[in-house]
Amino acid sequence: MDTDTIYMQQALYEAKKAFEEGEIPIGAVVVYNGKIIGRGHNRTEALQDATAHAEIISITAAENYLKNWRLNGAKLYVTTEPCIMCAGAILLSRIDEVIFATEEPKFGGVVSRTHVFDIEGLNHKVKYRKGPLGDEAARLLREFFLKKRVKQ
Amino acid sequence: MDTDTIYMQQALYEAKKAFEEGEIPIGAVVVYNGKIIGRGHNRTEALQDATAHAEIISITAAENYLKNWRLNGAKLYVTTEPCIMCAGAILLSRIDEVIFATEEPKFGGVVSRTHVFDIEGLNHKVKYRKGPLGDEAARLLREFFLKKRVKQ
Repeated sequence: MDTDTIYMQQALYEAKKAFEEGEIPIGAVVVYNGKIIGRGHNRTEALQDATAHAEIISITAAENYLKNWRLNGAKLYVTTEPCIMCAGAILLSRIDEVIFATEEPKFGGVVSRTHVFDIEGLNHKVKYRKGPLGDEAARLLREFFLKKRVKQ
Repeated sequence: MDTDTIYMQQALYEAKKAFEEGEIPIGAVVVYNGKIIGRGHNRTEALQDATAHAEIISITAAENYLKNWRLNGAKLYVTTEPCIMCAGAILLSRIDEVIFATEEPKFGGVVSRTHVFDIEGLNHKVKYRKGPLGDEAARLLREFFLKKRVKQ
């Protein structure tokens, strides 16, 4: 199995944890020198915190691990395209590259609603691309929102 | 004294705390029903956390206070134009209006580098305007960076 798939599987594992907790199922891992140094899943409802997205939690965990807010050289794997806030946090934390499994048409800040990483003249450049397991990530989101609608 | 100035003074007071702690001097307060329910200043270096901006800290404090991640009806006063990450967080937390004292040409996400609050078709609209005490806020930032250059 290629390394992209291995890391995205871990992000998907985090997304499934969010699903089980009744949170929008999105998960992320931060990889540095071939090692996962931060992981997280969406906890907006549990913490009643609009900023508790998978990316923010995994970035903070990685910064704690390295005892450094600069994550140059790190990659972030996330099951869904980061929102504007998370794209901004990725820029600020100097992550090298973002790999996301599926697009987020409503609030996506990378390729959908706006293009944060394409803004010219910032002091850091983040590479980005779509990675593997997009179907699985999208299916999990669909299942979550379907279940939520049935419940209500 | 008008209420805008009263609240911005409190944000500036937070910015001065950041200055004293050797952090980029930016402060913010969240106001709800005429009361400050969240306050914060930049703590990026102390926490080694790129996401520990004044806005994020004050928003999280306000959410904790209300036990709700939705801050509809709240206003955020901040000494400097929010960055892209913070503008995204403001959108997500459903804050009504942002008042900032001075612009941030390098990374500002409201009127400078990009215009997060002008993106069409999002599920929430944030009003924004420049408020009072811009000279004081800008002077504090200049003084900080001058001191930093002299030190290095």
